[in-house]
Amino acid sequence: MNNFENEAELLVKLRLSINYPNCRSWHLGVETSNIINFKTVPANCKDYVEDYLITSQQYRYDSKTVCKEAYFYAKGLALRNDTYNVWIFDLDDTLLSNVPFYAKHGYGTEKHDPEAFRKWLEVGEAPGLPETLHLYNNIQELGIEPILLTERFQEFEEVTLKNLKDAGFPYWRHILFRPTGSNMKTANFKSKERKKLEKSGHTIIGNIGDQYADLTKDNPGRRTFKLPNPLYYEP
Amino acid sequence: MNNFENEAELLVKLRLSINYPNCRSWHLGVETSNIINFKTVPANCKDYVEDYLITSQQYRYDSKTVCKEAYFYAKGLALRNDTYNVWIFDLDDTLLSNVPFYAKHGYGTEKHDPEAFRKWLEVGEAPGLPETLHLYNNIQELGIEPILLTERFQEFEEVTLKNLKDAGFPYWRHILFRPTGSNMKTANFKSKERKKLEKSGHTIIGNIGDQYADLTKDNPGRRTFKLPNPLYYEP
Repeated sequence: MNNFENEAELLVKLRLSINYPNCRSWHLGVETSNIINFKTVPANCKDYVEDYLITSQQYRYDSKTVCKEAYFYAKGLALRNDTYNVWIFDLDDTLLSNVPFYAKHGYGTEKHDPEAFRKWLEVGEAPGLPETLHLYNNIQELGIEPILLTERFQEFEEVTLKNLKDAGFPYWRHILFRPTGSNMKTANFKSKERKKLEKSGHTIIGNIGDQYADLTKDNPGRRTFKLPNPLYYEP
Repeated sequence: MNNFENEAELLVKLRLSINYPNCRSWHLGVETSNIINFKTVPANCKDYVEDYLITSQQYRYDSKTVCKEAYFYAKGLALRNDTYNVWIFDLDDTLLSNVPFYAKHGYGTEKHDPEAFRKWLEVGEAPGLPETLHLYNNIQELGIEPILLTERFQEFEEVTLKNLKDAGFPYWRHILFRPTGSNMKTANFKSKERKKLEKSGHTIIGNIGDQYADLTKDNPGRRTFKLPNPLYYEP
């Protein structure tokens, strides 16, 4: 290792130890993709995140604004009828909420615990997000079909389908899971699936998710919509 | 005009008349590019914008977080020495602030007045933004040269150079203005100039601006950073 690499490594370590004194600024940085690749929410921002998600309900207002904007965009389009007009929905923290899980695990300030998260998924009781549920219903009235595209592994299919139906999401043109055990990154997996959809006669009118990994790379859709999420970063 | 187009037009009109009841949500929507193509700040959000920019200083905290993140990113890189390592800076509301102008014009709630704005530019007294000034100085210490890329017309070159120097920005490898009278869109103009730079031996390490038009299309740079701006939208 030369000196420069050594210095760079030290800086990364230093970086992780820095507190963000203004948690609202930290959060805006996350939502705008200025702050990326973080492993946990800064320890001093736990109360901010709880207030944002639960106490102040700002999370709900912010989600509603995004979903309304998405609906007005879709409503203003002249849709072609020689294609399958579809809308891509991410699943976790887009249709179904993992907030109850994170509320018990320090609101993102604790290191991610894959085993505990797996158990949470297996219970299949994640609540639906009401703002996205409105969008999901309203785009169907416009003649646009939902496609659910998730980084969840295929092995969770059964519990996920039941959870979705219980939460008010009974229909999809397709639901696409990641192959169990795949180590493909979310952004690459989703981009590949979207490309297949467009090659097979679908037009991706819109694409909504809570992570930039849902919305970037090739074939993102005619417009993308970013839901808020201050809890974690999906690379 | 067929019925569908008629309906779409009506919806656009309807859309413009909608208030965003939660101005913080409206602003987050703008910063995340969920809300685009708006002509003015919603009338009910004037106080929010004034508070954001002036009273609460949240604007300063948010800008500082972005600029710090940009600096840490740059500091962690191993720079090649067989290329010109450069950083692209937008000008208006990135290096120089037009907040004093907008403070006298309803904080973005009034229809844009090109004549009044022209007079403001001709005075050449826009203050420097201190957070970006830090970044501008610090990247030069790392061996990265600033390139200023602005949608301002060439005709404003003289007053702009003086304004920049007065505000603490004395150096640039290049400063690139839009040809006077050009109706090329900002995003296209900037993308074209960035492509020319990369073809002529420059590596765009980073790119910072307050509008998505500064940061999108081809050759955006290795990483882009979005400064906050609740005042206007540049298509």
